[in-house]
Amino acid sequence: MRKVILAVAVSLDGFIEGPNGEYDWCFTDQDYGLKEFFKRIDTIFVGRKTYEMSLEMEGGGTGFPKFKEYIFSTTLDKVKEGATLIKEDIKTKVEKIKTEKGKDIWLFGGAVLTTSLMNSRLVDELSLAVHPVILGGGKPLFSNIKDRINLTLIDTRTYSTGLVSLTYNLARK
Amino acid sequence: MRKVILAVAVSLDGFIEGPNGEYDWCFTDQDYGLKEFFKRIDTIFVGRKTYEMSLEMEGGGTGFPKFKEYIFSTTLDKVKEGATLIKEDIKTKVEKIKTEKGKDIWLFGGAVLTTSLMNSRLVDELSLAVHPVILGGGKPLFSNIKDRINLTLIDTRTYSTGLVSLTYNLARK
Repeated sequence: MRKVILAVAVSLDGFIEGPNGEYDWCFTDQDYGLKEFFKRIDTIFVGRKTYEMSLEMEGGGTGFPKFKEYIFSTTLDKVKEGATLIKEDIKTKVEKIKTEKGKDIWLFGGAVLTTSLMNSRLVDELSLAVHPVILGGGKPLFSNIKDRINLTLIDTRTYSTGLVSLTYNLARK
Repeated sequence: MRKVILAVAVSLDGFIEGPNGEYDWCFTDQDYGLKEFFKRIDTIFVGRKTYEMSLEMEGGGTGFPKFKEYIFSTTLDKVKEGATLIKEDIKTKVEKIKTEKGKDIWLFGGAVLTTSLMNSRLVDELSLAVHPVILGGGKPLFSNIKDRINLTLIDTRTYSTGLVSLTYNLARK
């Protein structure tokens, strides 16, 4: 079965954005395993806000390879060509996508979709690029998680810049 | 100069206690470097709430070696025999203690004292025993941190249970 992987850069105090939405603390000096990760996936899950943000940046482009995109939104009625809108029955639809043929799926964010999929236990793997910084505020990676989730550590990588990559499997309920 | 070290067990989502104050997620099956750590220190810094909690548990005892204790409180007038009360001028007094002869100092907690010493840039080292669990709520390790703090990773240790120990030096302002 295809895995849904939440892979994201995070500060040591658990923020994915600084207090003013800033990302300047994210290291860009090297690959940090991204190229290898991209080989594993062919599909991304994107929440509505993140999707709209990515549209604004269009032209600049994301620099990502061509992935199959699923946009999750209860309010949108259509999405860009080639992408698929998921409006309802998230659990059933994600479970179906996971049984379809294909590579693994990157849960790209944002916060609302992440919480929803975490609480429905639809996320299989968690890969955090823990940056050596305390931001003190901003957008937390985890919010409104309902129950305790046990994890199994499957990989750690330490980079010379002080970034530590931690990868876990998530327990099913 | 003696270092002040914040060494603590934390969930992957940054909590030092669960939603109901629980610690049952903390691994106790092995030492996780604690014995080695205890050789480095001879002094602990304790906040008022944590101090009062430890008094209630007296008799059971903490199991810790005999450390010199400093209790930080603006409201207490006296503390137990052998301990030293610090009521005011925290920054000056901590800076003085750090220049005194002795081993390193364990910032034992709790949250209010940790925030105060972090924001005054009096903490030199951070050692997090990151447990493989998402608690979803509880008491956060970091709260009310005023400014971004840059860290330098100095050690990572991965244990077979999935606990990852991350140790950082903190940048001075």
